[in-house]
Amino acid sequence: MIDELINQIILKKNPTVAGLDTRFEYIPEFLIKKYAPPGSGFKGVADAIFEFNKEIIDAIYDLVPAVKIQIAYYESYGIPGIEAFKQTISHARNKGLIVIADVKRNDIGPTAGAYSSAFLGETKLPDGCARAFDADFATINPYLGIDGVKPFIDDCKKYNKGIFILVKTSNPSSGDIQDIKTEKGRVYEIVAERVNEWGNGLLGKYGYSPIGAVVGATYPKQLSELRDIMPNAFILIPGYGAQGAAANDIVGGFCADGLGAIVNASRSIICAWKNDSLSPEKFVLAAKGEVIRMRDEIDSALVSAKKRAW
Amino acid sequence: MIDELINQIILKKNPTVAGLDTRFEYIPEFLIKKYAPPGSGFKGVADAIFEFNKEIIDAIYDLVPAVKIQIAYYESYGIPGIEAFKQTISHARNKGLIVIADVKRNDIGPTAGAYSSAFLGETKLPDGCARAFDADFATINPYLGIDGVKPFIDDCKKYNKGIFILVKTSNPSSGDIQDIKTEKGRVYEIVAERVNEWGNGLLGKYGYSPIGAVVGATYPKQLSELRDIMPNAFILIPGYGAQGAAANDIVGGFCADGLGAIVNASRSIICAWKNDSLSPEKFVLAAKGEVIRMRDEIDSALVSAKKRAW
Repeated sequence: MIDELINQIILKKNPTVAGLDTRFEYIPEFLIKKYAPPGSGFKGVADAIFEFNKEIIDAIYDLVPAVKIQIAYYESYGIPGIEAFKQTISHARNKGLIVIADVKRNDIGPTAGAYSSAFLGETKLPDGCARAFDADFATINPYLGIDGVKPFIDDCKKYNKGIFILVKTSNPSSGDIQDIKTEKGRVYEIVAERVNEWGNGLLGKYGYSPIGAVVGATYPKQLSELRDIMPNAFILIPGYGAQGAAANDIVGGFCADGLGAIVNASRSIICAWKNDSLSPEKFVLAAKGEVIRMRDEIDSALVSAKKRAW
Repeated sequence: MIDELINQIILKKNPTVAGLDTRFEYIPEFLIKKYAPPGSGFKGVADAIFEFNKEIIDAIYDLVPAVKIQIAYYESYGIPGIEAFKQTISHARNKGLIVIADVKRNDIGPTAGAYSSAFLGETKLPDGCARAFDADFATINPYLGIDGVKPFIDDCKKYNKGIFILVKTSNPSSGDIQDIKTEKGRVYEIVAERVNEWGNGLLGKYGYSPIGAVVGATYPKQLSELRDIMPNAFILIPGYGAQGAAANDIVGGFCADGLGAIVNASRSIICAWKNDSLSPEKFVLAAKGEVIRMRDEIDSALVSAKKRAW
């Protein structure tokens, strides 16, 4: 799947990912009125969220290689919300997009195996197997060590999928645990070494493994350093846009071949209509405009850094 | 909620938790035949799981203070599975049990807030608020630091809930990250200090905070050491039974007052029927028998250690 992701990046000349972290506050009033009238509860909001996501996907699927869907917001709307998460995955994949399920799952071995069945692989039933969510990539938390990660790695091989393991996250307090100094470097550096090692032997045609890493754009110095520690790993870079990072902050995440990273922005894209002179009815055009602006901004930064792959 | 949990422990003279980590392989054939005939897919299995859980809850609710429900297995059965997770929470709470949602969620601040809304608090809707899963406690991964934990702590205060933060997990490779040596002790010790600190000022009538910790029974030495580092924190101890730990391994998790810990067993209880001379139709009696055996075994160990609270 890492090869398919890179194919899409090269085809679309764009290493950015649109994050569909949709909550009802991000949806224009006219859609809320239509789909989520008073009394319609979680179901109404979930219907509005799926319609909003669908229209955005339909407008940008030929511009971006992938979407990242943050499950937390969908879970907060209960079962209907999770149904909208599943529908959004299906719709995006039907449009040829690579789908990253941002679920940050983690547990001990057998339980991690159940999570992996849910999001990447398939689940055994009394009379066969079935797929629950069937994303292309999932994000994973490494705090439980290799036996909590291995079931996902096994499914990456078995089902041609990929994972991004949290290494250095974009939030202000990511250093609380991740930056702790040890005899062998900081905790995030040790995790990065493991991520690179876990990808050994799994390299695809572009030289990257399906075992990727998450490193926040909000820590550009660490991003460059981690790029060198993990030559095997594709880096998913969150924190661009609403979280404060800009194009120059992310170039360090790219390799000399102009590949090796994808940059996610969520709120700056899906909430673009709030800062736009267009009417809210044209939220899709605002999102599309921001996707193009972000693509071009990152493209320029990569050209300046002599790291553009196409 | 920590006071309610302790009230239940004292009332039932039992600091154990039944883990409902139910997958279809754990369910007797006669129930699978009835609820999940060929072709019934996730829905059939989910119905069988809820029926199985319901019958076990009805048999043990007066024996244990709490149940722990591991969401990974339910997610692996898709939307119907998550519906069974939700129904199991409701049924257990209706029976007066404390419910621990074992979800190990984690993310950056605003997203952690959405997870907390989903499992502990309530979610804002255009015309009010609603509760998605409404458990009493949730398990949390600390890798993102305090701003990924704070939304859960805020909801513990606002909605009278609790959390258990992963400190030293029960799996064989938990040491990969958690045991790394630093200038200030091992990573799990540093996390433990934070957990204790995050609970400061929130102590209930028994002297424990709603900010608890997860420490595996499979590491008895570390469990005793961590008990001392976190005087504020209630410890959820997994790893008993099927994972290999026995009663003497867990006494170090208890304080001198005979409180301070709850011990979870999952497979040894819900799969007890497989090792029992009773017919599979009597799976509930087998589970109940194992719950009583475990309670008595731990009771004896606590008496020997002079740590029984009742």
